[in-house]
Amino acid sequence: METLRLFDFLPSANGYKIRLLLTQLGIPFERINFDITKNETRSPDFLSKNPNGQIPVLEVQPGQYLAESNAILIYLSEGTEYLPYDRWQRAQVIQWLFFEQCNYAYIATPRLWISILHQYDQHRTEIEKLYQHGYTALQIMENHLQTNNFFVGGRYSIADISLFAHTHVAPEGGYDLTQFPAIGTWIERIKSQPGYIDITEE
Amino acid sequence: METLRLFDFLPSANGYKIRLLLTQLGIPFERINFDITKNETRSPDFLSKNPNGQIPVLEVQPGQYLAESNAILIYLSEGTEYLPYDRWQRAQVIQWLFFEQCNYAYIATPRLWISILHQYDQHRTEIEKLYQHGYTALQIMENHLQTNNFFVGGRYSIADISLFAHTHVAPEGGYDLTQFPAIGTWIERIKSQPGYIDITEE
Repeated sequence: METLRLFDFLPSANGYKIRLLLTQLGIPFERINFDITKNETRSPDFLSKNPNGQIPVLEVQPGQYLAESNAILIYLSEGTEYLPYDRWQRAQVIQWLFFEQCNYAYIATPRLWISILHQYDQHRTEIEKLYQHGYTALQIMENHLQTNNFFVGGRYSIADISLFAHTHVAPEGGYDLTQFPAIGTWIERIKSQPGYIDITEE
Repeated sequence: METLRLFDFLPSANGYKIRLLLTQLGIPFERINFDITKNETRSPDFLSKNPNGQIPVLEVQPGQYLAESNAILIYLSEGTEYLPYDRWQRAQVIQWLFFEQCNYAYIATPRLWISILHQYDQHRTEIEKLYQHGYTALQIMENHLQTNNFFVGGRYSIADISLFAHTHVAPEGGYDLTQFPAIGTWIERIKSQPGYIDITEE
């Protein structure tokens, strides 16, 4: 089998989801960096791999490209302990992946503007609006984690990986996570999983 | 088996995805309407079913609730002709579902404001911004459909159902679809599928 190639941007939490899962699965991969702050994902070559112009993209076979971080998580985790075999549990994992997709931009965009692009002043008003939605999503997660160690079925799955990726770096976007103690405990629980790597660890 | 119950709002394209698939699968279901324009999904009873406060929600078993329209599509279509068994094709279907989830709000929100809430004037500026992103997404779909009859594997799947639901009513949000001829042909192709029902058909 060819080595998998991951088209990625190191600070990206969406890219990190895939790096974390691949590392925990013990699957070797080659990481190819595209600096989104320099529009490197807008080149004709990149757009031929993902017309949407976004990382991460996984080259599954030479010339076969899969986009959308949560779709890649499902693809890689099928048949592994990270995606439940039980139909109802699997449905709940996928439900949380779509919840994440609906809400992550509220959490990711302030981090992009503040910590990656250093444009807080010019986006101040939009950031305040995003906080309203982002805190609502965090409260839903907090409520769920008050009675669950992990998001689905009492065990670590790609639902946790997906939600963890953006949530644990939310403070880099100005979010205050100290008001969500169950999220805080869950973050530490994820960090103690076998094979855990940090977001910018290569 | 109990009759499935679908918590739904008739004009909702997200709800329609589930109604269309259930009808095409020949699975009977009871539709329970929640008028989102009257905040009926914000009641404590509804929030106990989906803390996110959104329809559709499928009651799979008494007391077991599944939210997120695309997660419900995957759940219902597993093992049927609407979700490919082939791993790579299935991955592509799920990729398009996440693409839809990333982009549908650009297409759905103008329709909500213009045709359902009749608030065009107060949202005019936001609607113009949404059009920019929405037309980009439509162009990606158009390009793909220029060389594909359906989104994945040359056959009708939940990727088509999901993308069709919001796209075919985009003109109710002021979108001009006449500039996308391949989308137009694809829309007619979907409407000719066995078991097709209209969005507000009960």
